[in-house]
Amino acid sequence: MAPHPLDGLSLEETHKARDIVCGLHSEHNVFFREIYLDEPKKALLRKYLTAEHSGQPLPSIPRQALCQYDVLDGKGGVQSQESIVDIDTGKRVEHIIVPEEHHASLSIPEFRYLVNAVAESKLFADAVAELKLPEGFEVVVEPWPYDGLGADEENNRYFQGLCFGRDTRQNNPDSNFYAYPLPLIPVMNAKTKEIVRVDRLPTGGDQDGLQDETHKPNVLDHCVGADYVPELLPNGPRTTLKALNVSQPDGPSFSVNGGLIEWEHWRFRVGFNPREGATIHDVHFQGRSVMYRLSISEMSVPYADPRSPFPRKQAFDFGDGGIGSATNNLKLGCDCLGVIKYFDGVIMAANNTAEVAPNVVCLHEQDNGIGWKHTNWRTNRAVVTRNRELVVQFIITLANYEYVFAYKFDLAGGITVETRATGIVSVVNIDPGKTSAYGNVVSPGALAQNHQHIFCVRLDPAVDGYENTVVVEESHPVAVGPKNPAGNLYEVRKTPVEKSQWIDAAARHNRVIKMVNQDKKNPISGRNVSYKFTPVDTQLLLAQPESGQAQRAQFAQHHVWVTKYADRELYAAGRYPLSSKVEKGGLSDAVKRNDEVANSDVVVWSVFGLTHNPRVEDWPVMPAEVHQINLRPADFFTANPSIDVPSNVNSASVLTNGSTAANGVNGSNGTNGHAGCH
Amino acid sequence: MAPHPLDGLSLEETHKARDIVCGLHSEHNVFFREIYLDEPKKALLRKYLTAEHSGQPLPSIPRQALCQYDVLDGKGGVQSQESIVDIDTGKRVEHIIVPEEHHASLSIPEFRYLVNAVAESKLFADAVAELKLPEGFEVVVEPWPYDGLGADEENNRYFQGLCFGRDTRQNNPDSNFYAYPLPLIPVMNAKTKEIVRVDRLPTGGDQDGLQDETHKPNVLDHCVGADYVPELLPNGPRTTLKALNVSQPDGPSFSVNGGLIEWEHWRFRVGFNPREGATIHDVHFQGRSVMYRLSISEMSVPYADPRSPFPRKQAFDFGDGGIGSATNNLKLGCDCLGVIKYFDGVIMAANNTAEVAPNVVCLHEQDNGIGWKHTNWRTNRAVVTRNRELVVQFIITLANYEYVFAYKFDLAGGITVETRATGIVSVVNIDPGKTSAYGNVVSPGALAQNHQHIFCVRLDPAVDGYENTVVVEESHPVAVGPKNPAGNLYEVRKTPVEKSQWIDAAARHNRVIKMVNQDKKNPISGRNVSYKFTPVDTQLLLAQPESGQAQRAQFAQHHVWVTKYADRELYAAGRYPLSSKVEKGGLSDAVKRNDEVANSDVVVWSVFGLTHNPRVEDWPVMPAEVHQINLRPADFFTANPSIDVPSNVNSASVLTNGSTAANGVNGSNGTNGHAGCH
Repeated sequence: MAPHPLDGLSLEETHKARDIVCGLHSEHNVFFREIYLDEPKKALLRKYLTAEHSGQPLPSIPRQALCQYDVLDGKGGVQSQESIVDIDTGKRVEHIIVPEEHHASLSIPEFRYLVNAVAESKLFADAVAELKLPEGFEVVVEPWPYDGLGADEENNRYFQGLCFGRDTRQNNPDSNFYAYPLPLIPVMNAKTKEIVRVDRLPTGGDQDGLQDETHKPNVLDHCVGADYVPELLPNGPRTTLKALNVSQPDGPSFSVNGGLIEWEHWRFRVGFNPREGATIHDVHFQGRSVMYRLSISEMSVPYADPRSPFPRKQAFDFGDGGIGSATNNLKLGCDCLGVIKYFDGVIMAANNTAEVAPNVVCLHEQDNGIGWKHTNWRTNRAVVTRNRELVVQFIITLANYEYVFAYKFDLAGGITVETRATGIVSVVNIDPGKTSAYGNVVSPGALAQNHQHIFCVRLDPAVDGYENTVVVEESHPVAVGPKNPAGNLYEVRKTPVEKSQWIDAAARHNRVIKMVNQDKKNPISGRNVSYKFTPVDTQLLLAQPESGQAQRAQFAQHHVWVTKYADRELYAAGRYPLSSKVEKGGLSDAVKRNDEVANSDVVVWSVFGLTHNPRVEDWPVMPAEVHQINLRPADFFTANPSIDVPSNVNSASVLTNGSTAANGVNGSNGTNGHAGCH
Repeated sequence: MAPHPLDGLSLEETHKARDIVCGLHSEHNVFFREIYLDEPKKALLRKYLTAEHSGQPLPSIPRQALCQYDVLDGKGGVQSQESIVDIDTGKRVEHIIVPEEHHASLSIPEFRYLVNAVAESKLFADAVAELKLPEGFEVVVEPWPYDGLGADEENNRYFQGLCFGRDTRQNNPDSNFYAYPLPLIPVMNAKTKEIVRVDRLPTGGDQDGLQDETHKPNVLDHCVGADYVPELLPNGPRTTLKALNVSQPDGPSFSVNGGLIEWEHWRFRVGFNPREGATIHDVHFQGRSVMYRLSISEMSVPYADPRSPFPRKQAFDFGDGGIGSATNNLKLGCDCLGVIKYFDGVIMAANNTAEVAPNVVCLHEQDNGIGWKHTNWRTNRAVVTRNRELVVQFIITLANYEYVFAYKFDLAGGITVETRATGIVSVVNIDPGKTSAYGNVVSPGALAQNHQHIFCVRLDPAVDGYENTVVVEESHPVAVGPKNPAGNLYEVRKTPVEKSQWIDAAARHNRVIKMVNQDKKNPISGRNVSYKFTPVDTQLLLAQPESGQAQRAQFAQHHVWVTKYADRELYAAGRYPLSSKVEKGGLSDAVKRNDEVANSDVVVWSVFGLTHNPRVEDWPVMPAEVHQINLRPADFFTANPSIDVPSNVNSASVLTNGSTAANGVNGSNGTNGHAGCH
C-alpha cells in the first residue's frame, strides 16, 4: 500500500534517498547527518487532504526526502550540503550548499569523536592530573554544543565537553557522575578532531572574583554521591506506595491506521521526524478542520553564570542536532500508563545506515478529572462526566536534562500542548563551604547554575479552512458614565492582526489570541468561529539584547509571533542554530518580511519560559515542572461538544474507610460498594 | 473517644450548642442559620498540636461552637446574633450582636420564602401574564442574593429571583429551564416576606439603549431547549467511549483515622464547616511542619452588564450564605474515580435541626503523569517514576454554577490547590436576531452575560515552625559590564515583607512568593528553608473602584495579601458580604493595620481571576475551566523527596495496535504485552 504523503520515510525509502545522493557525489565520501521526509508543499498537500476528506480522487504527490550531509573532499575539507530528492523518480529536486556562516547540526558521531579525542589528548590528561582525583574515580566527558557566544572569528566548528568523575567503586555503570563535577572543559575542533584547549573553570563563591580559578587539587573530596538508580539508593525504593492501575477492559476508544488516529470525533495524523520529534497534522473534529500542523519548534536553555567560559552554555535542544537520537524508547521505562500504542521513527545511525528508533511516540487515553457537572438543587439530580484525554507523547534526553512533550486532545474540542522538564540540573564544581549568587549548591561541591528554559510551539491553524485571521481580544474597564452608570461594565476589544509581528502576553488585560475564520459565523452567536488560547505571562529571555545568547535566540523574547506561512519555515531560531552568532531565518527574520497576514495562511508561534533558579529538591533528579498551552474552541461549535458523554457510574471504583477501621468523627461507615464515574 | 480539637461538631454536639443558646434566649423564638466548630484559638491549638506531635501530654482545649442565629422579638423584629458556647460547660463564652449595617448570611428557608412569596404575589402574576408564555411552560424562580450595589438606604434585607420557564411537556423535572430566561426579577423584602417590586429586564441588543425594555410578549417563542440530562439528549449519550477504570488491587496507600490522613510522608487533618467547605490543617511532611491551615476563603462573581438591574448580580459564593447547603453529595454522581473515602459534614437544616450532609468531601489517589525521569544515554538505562497525588475534593452548586475545589498533595512535597468552574452560565433573555456587547448569545434568546470569577485561597504557613517570613523573590536582567561581560547574567533579588500589604503578580520578573523560616537553613545550600508559589498573572476585578461591585470586593483587586494572623480572620471579603455596601473586616481592612509581619505568625492570601466572556461551547453546561496554585518546597528538603519512589513496570498496562490491525508505516507490530509504570 502506498504511503500517505505525511507518513515518515520507511527504512527502505531512507536508504533509497541516501543512494540517490551518493550517486550524485560518487567521487567523494559523504557522511549523512539526517534523512527524513520533506513534507509536501502546502499548496499541493492542501489539495490532497481536501480530496481525501471529501472522498475525491487523490492527486499524486511527489515523495521527497530531505537529506542533510557532509561532503568530504578527502583533503580535510568538509562541505555541508542538503539535497531534496524524489524517491520515486530518483532525481534531485533541490540542492543547497549550506552557507559557510552556518554550522550543520551536530551528530552523535561527532560526540564520539570528542570523547575519543579527550581520551587521547595529552593536554587533557595533564589537566586531569593536576586535579588529584580520588582513587577509583574515572573521568566522564559529556559532549555539549559550543554555543552562547557563537563561533570564533574564523567560524571554526567546535564542541565542548563537560566533565564529571564517576565512582567506579560502586560497580554500576549508572552511578550518578553528575555529583562529581570537574572544573575542566576540553574544547575540540570538529574538523581536526583535536582538543585545542582545556578551559579551567572558576570554582569560587560569592566572595570570589569573576575570573577566580580557585581550582584546587582534591576538587572532588568534598563532593557527595547522589544516586537515583534504585539499586544504589541508600535505603532502597520505598514499599509504601500501593499499585494504581489503569485499565480499559473493552480496549481503547481510539483507532490507529498507520499514522491516522481517530478518537471521539477527533481525526488527525501523527508524524515523526528527527528534527522536531512527534508532529500532529490535519486535525479535524466532527469532520471540520481545526489545525493544519502542530509541532515543538525549538527550545533554548541559556545559562546565566557570567564567569568565563559559562556564557557558552546555551543549548538549542531541537535545532543544535535535532532530537532524533535524543528521543527515548518509551518501552524501556514506565512512561505511559494504561492501554498504549507505540509508534516507531526512523533515524540515521552510524555508518550512513538508517535504523528504526522504536517506540519513540506513545498514544493512550487518560482521565483528567471532572469534565462538566451540574446538579439541579431542587431535585438533587446530578449529572457529571469525566474529562477523558487522548495523549500523544514523546520524551527527549539532552545530556543531563529530559523533556516530556505531550499533545492532549479532550472531549470538549480542546487541544493542550504540555511540556514537562525533568532530569538532572547542570552543575559545576564549587569550593567547599562556599555559596554563589549564580546558582544554588544542591549537593556538596555541586553548584547548579541559574538558567532558563524557553520553548516555542508552532501552531498552523486551519479553523474551518486554511485562511484564518489572528485576532487579539482583551477585556478592559470602562469609566463610570451614561453607558456605565454603576461602574460594573467592562468591554471586550478585538483587534485583527494585519501584518506579521510579535505580540506579548498581557494577562492583566485578559489578552487572548484567537485564530478566526472570517468567513464562517457561528449560527447561534453570530460571531466568527475560532480557536483561542491565552498566552501565559511567563518570564522570557533575560540576557542583554546585545549578548550572544540574546542575539541567537530572538524568538525567545516575545510570547507570540504571527507570520505568514512559508514552506519549511518551521524553526523558531532558524535552521542552523548550532554555534550561531545570530538568529538567522528564524522568527525575527520572518516578521521582518512585514507580510499581510489577515485572512490568509497565517502561522502562530507560542513562546513560554521557565526561569530555573534551582532548588535542592531538584537534586539528584528534578520533579517535573509542567507548562501547558490550552487551545480551546471559541464559538466554533453550537454547544458543548462533550454534552453527550455518558455519566454512568464506574463499576470499578470502590469505597474505602482507609487502612484503619475507624469512623470519621462525623464520618460514615463506608462499605465496599460502587461509586465513581465512567 | 474524645474528639480531636479540629474535628467538626457531631450532630449531638451541634444540638447541645443549640440548646445552650436557646436556654439563653428562652423568652424569644430563635432561628438558627448555622452552628459549627469554633476552631480553637491558635495560641492554644499550637500547644496542643506540638504536644501531639512530640508525644507529650495533651493540654485540654475547650470544645466550642459558633452559633449564628436570628432572635425574633415576636413583633416582626429580627436581630442577628452570634454566640460562642462551650459545649462541655454549657456556658456562653462570647456574645456578638451583629451590627445592623451587616446582613447575616442567607439561608435556605429564606430561599423558600422567596419562592413561596413569588407564587403568592399578584404583582408577579400580572407581570408573568404580560409575557404570554407558551402552553405547557411554568415559571421557575431561582433565588439569588441581592448584591452588587449593596443594600438600599434603609439597609433593608432583600432577595431577588431570576426567572426561567420550564417546559413541562417534557415530563421531566430536570429539563433545562435555563434555556428559557424570563425578563423579570421579583424582589422580596426578607423581613415582610413580600414581593415589593418586579423589575422588568431589558432584552435589547447592541443597537438598543441601556434602559431598553423591549420586553415584548412571546419572549420565549424564539428560545430553544438545551437539555443535559442524558434521557433528554436528542440522540442519547454516545456509545463510543470505552470504559477507563482505575483500581488499586492492594488498596489505597492512605490511612484515615477520623479526620487524620496519612499518606507517603504526608500527615494532615481534614475538616469541614458550612462556611468554607473542606479545610486542611496541621500539614506535616516527614514529621516537619509545612502548613497550619489551608482553605478557600471567598470568591466573587461580578457581572458586567451595565443595564439596570444587572449590576446587582454579584455573588459571594462562600460569604453570602456559606456553602454548607450548597455542597454536593459526591456519592450521587461520578465525581471521583478509583478507591474513594468519603467524609460527611454536619449542617443546620430546617426547623433548627442539624443533619448529616453525607459524602461532602472525598479522598482518593490519582496518577498525574511522569514524576521524574532520567536516562543515561550511554547505557540506555532509564529510570522513571509516576507522580501520584492524594486528592481531597469538594464540590459546590450555587444555583446555576458549580465549583470543584481540590487540595492535591504529591510525592515531591508539593501541594496544589485546584479550582474547576463548571455548571451553567447565567443567561438573560434577548430579543430574536440580536447580539450584545455585554455577553454572548449561547442559545437562541439566551444571552450569557460577561462576568468574572475571582477566588481567594487562604494559606497559613508553618514552615518548620509557626513563625515565618514572606519573601518576594524576582529575577532581573543586569547591564553588560565588568560583572557581566557576556551579558548573560541575571540576578535574583529577595525582599522580605516587613509590613502587612498587598502584592501583585509579576511573572515578567519571575516574582515568586516564598514563605521562609528565617531560623532554619538548608544544610546543603545554606539557604533558609521555605515553601513557595508563583502568583499567576490573571486579570482581577475590572469594575470601577468607586462602583459597588469593587467596594464590596476589595480583596479581588490584588493577587497576594500578606497579613498578621488573627483568630477567626478567615474571610477575604469580611464576615458579612451579603448585600454589603463595602468590604468590612476583609483583607483591605486587615492590611490597614500595618502590622509587622516579618518572622511572625504571618498569613498569605492568594487571589486569582477568570474573566469569563462566555462562548457557545459553554452551553448548556460548560466544560470545566481549571486553575491551580502550586505550593512547592524550596530548599526545604535535602534532596528530591520522591527520589525513592519505585520505578517498576506496571503489570496492568497493555499494548495495543489500535482498533484496526494495520501496522504503522514505520510502526511496530504491537503485541499484547506489558509496559507502563507502577
